[in-house]
Amino acid sequence: MHITFCCAATEAQPWLQDLRAALPGADISLWHPGAAPADYAIVWAPPQAFFDQQPQLRAAFNIGAGVDALLRLKISPATQLVRLDDAGMAVQMAEYVCHALIRHYRECAAYDKHQQAGVWNQRDIAPRSRMPVGIMGLGVLGERVARTVAQFDFPVNGWSRSPKSIPGVQCFSGQDGFNAFLAASRVLVSLLPATPETQGLINRDTLSRLMPGAYLINVARGAQLVEDDLLALLDSGHMAGAALDVFRTEPLPTGHPFWTHPQITITPHTAALTIRGESVAQIAAKIASLESGKPVAGLVDRSRGY
Amino acid sequence: MHITFCCAATEAQPWLQDLRAALPGADISLWHPGAAPADYAIVWAPPQAFFDQQPQLRAAFNIGAGVDALLRLKISPATQLVRLDDAGMAVQMAEYVCHALIRHYRECAAYDKHQQAGVWNQRDIAPRSRMPVGIMGLGVLGERVARTVAQFDFPVNGWSRSPKSIPGVQCFSGQDGFNAFLAASRVLVSLLPATPETQGLINRDTLSRLMPGAYLINVARGAQLVEDDLLALLDSGHMAGAALDVFRTEPLPTGHPFWTHPQITITPHTAALTIRGESVAQIAAKIASLESGKPVAGLVDRSRGY
Repeated sequence: MHITFCCAATEAQPWLQDLRAALPGADISLWHPGAAPADYAIVWAPPQAFFDQQPQLRAAFNIGAGVDALLRLKISPATQLVRLDDAGMAVQMAEYVCHALIRHYRECAAYDKHQQAGVWNQRDIAPRSRMPVGIMGLGVLGERVARTVAQFDFPVNGWSRSPKSIPGVQCFSGQDGFNAFLAASRVLVSLLPATPETQGLINRDTLSRLMPGAYLINVARGAQLVEDDLLALLDSGHMAGAALDVFRTEPLPTGHPFWTHPQITITPHTAALTIRGESVAQIAAKIASLESGKPVAGLVDRSRGY
Repeated sequence: MHITFCCAATEAQPWLQDLRAALPGADISLWHPGAAPADYAIVWAPPQAFFDQQPQLRAAFNIGAGVDALLRLKISPATQLVRLDDAGMAVQMAEYVCHALIRHYRECAAYDKHQQAGVWNQRDIAPRSRMPVGIMGLGVLGERVARTVAQFDFPVNGWSRSPKSIPGVQCFSGQDGFNAFLAASRVLVSLLPATPETQGLINRDTLSRLMPGAYLINVARGAQLVEDDLLALLDSGHMAGAALDVFRTEPLPTGHPFWTHPQITITPHTAALTIRGESVAQIAAKIASLESGKPVAGLVDRSRGY
């Protein structure tokens, strides 16, 4: 069995080492143009040329959460595209979202300024019933985030394309439920996949439907947000702030207004990093299942786009 | 039934209004020297003179989490001292501790500096198995904090005077278990009550037993920390930082080194504020129980000190 590794912006040697340890019977190598065709591939943002040279590829494992870059390529229908189940990303997403949420709700930035100014000033806390949190996208990541936010006794709303049921979460679904979901939320968190339907979904119209003093946390994909609409609604006061991990152009260009906006906190697409150890263990298990004809979780539905 | 309200640094009118609504049959008033004796009292840091004028007081309800100030007073043994069960404080403590923990673990302060400098720089994340969190004090507040920290998949250790068992938490107890608890923890969180035993407990010896690169979160009482010992261990590099909500002298005096230390985050004793609505509901229910001879939760054991 030949396994190839083709991941942009990823240091390959530690992955190859861990993969070889986990799959001792396999021939595992770094892909290069002209390399021998593989049976399985571990990929992240591979070039089209990679798939053009894979006549026998049974499955490609995507080591990031989003498969949008993959689905823009021409890939044989005989190749199964497989997402990892979680690989440590869900807890990181929960961590990032809870940190941003608590920081906003408890006015931590104001306390930081007080410390810098040497001021001892206790602030009241708004009732958390007034801070309902709406999570868009209830897959493995979104569900984990929703459950964790609920641990802090915030009212939690969830929205997904197809109906879901999560204890402690008021679930909305489909186009019909979208506006009611927005109207019931003051904090909006996106964990939606990048698809044509979610492109530009976070815009003036949708943000305006949130409760006033709204806060946006985008940990999904930058193309979901119409950036100028967010800036306009921060100016108008409808939006209170945003924590953004993803952007239309990454790295965020020098001089972009998000860098210096006092109500926007940015991070460089680090809300959830792929954890190598957990990823390798999952890939090895999934290859074993595929080899023995068993079903594997995480198969990408190309028609849905995730 | 006469109920009196005697709470330092608390705006009385909203409390009196809510108490009257919750206990319509009672005569409820603000205490002043020479006021008629009461059957029940709602107190926070009352003066000795208050208790000197209470020959018939059945119970005093303390609206903060700590009863240490109360126990320094001379109070008739016929008066029961009652803590509120939680009154919204546990979730706030969980919120504060998780925010400080995530902020430290995910290097959020470094990302803030990167944003200020306009720098796009992804940082690796250490395995969370290397960030075991030790919670001292496993009462209502400590247990809630421990359970919530465990949601983020950190290893969690707990320490309490008497043995406890909490799912997902490695529990240590008593003097015998204390050093093993410290040695197994890199983050130390104090939710201990203020007693003679806990005074100065967070000192050079105990902090030195933590894993190197340790982080301290003190949301209990300032007197538990030997402040100079923390500063010395930050200098030596053994301690990586601290988030402190409580201090030996409050407000923290101008010029105190904690105000400007780059590795110390301070807040003005706001980790958990008393929530009036929930407190009033609990006080009303506890008075009803006491009046009908039923047991109430939260009775203070004066010999233990909490």
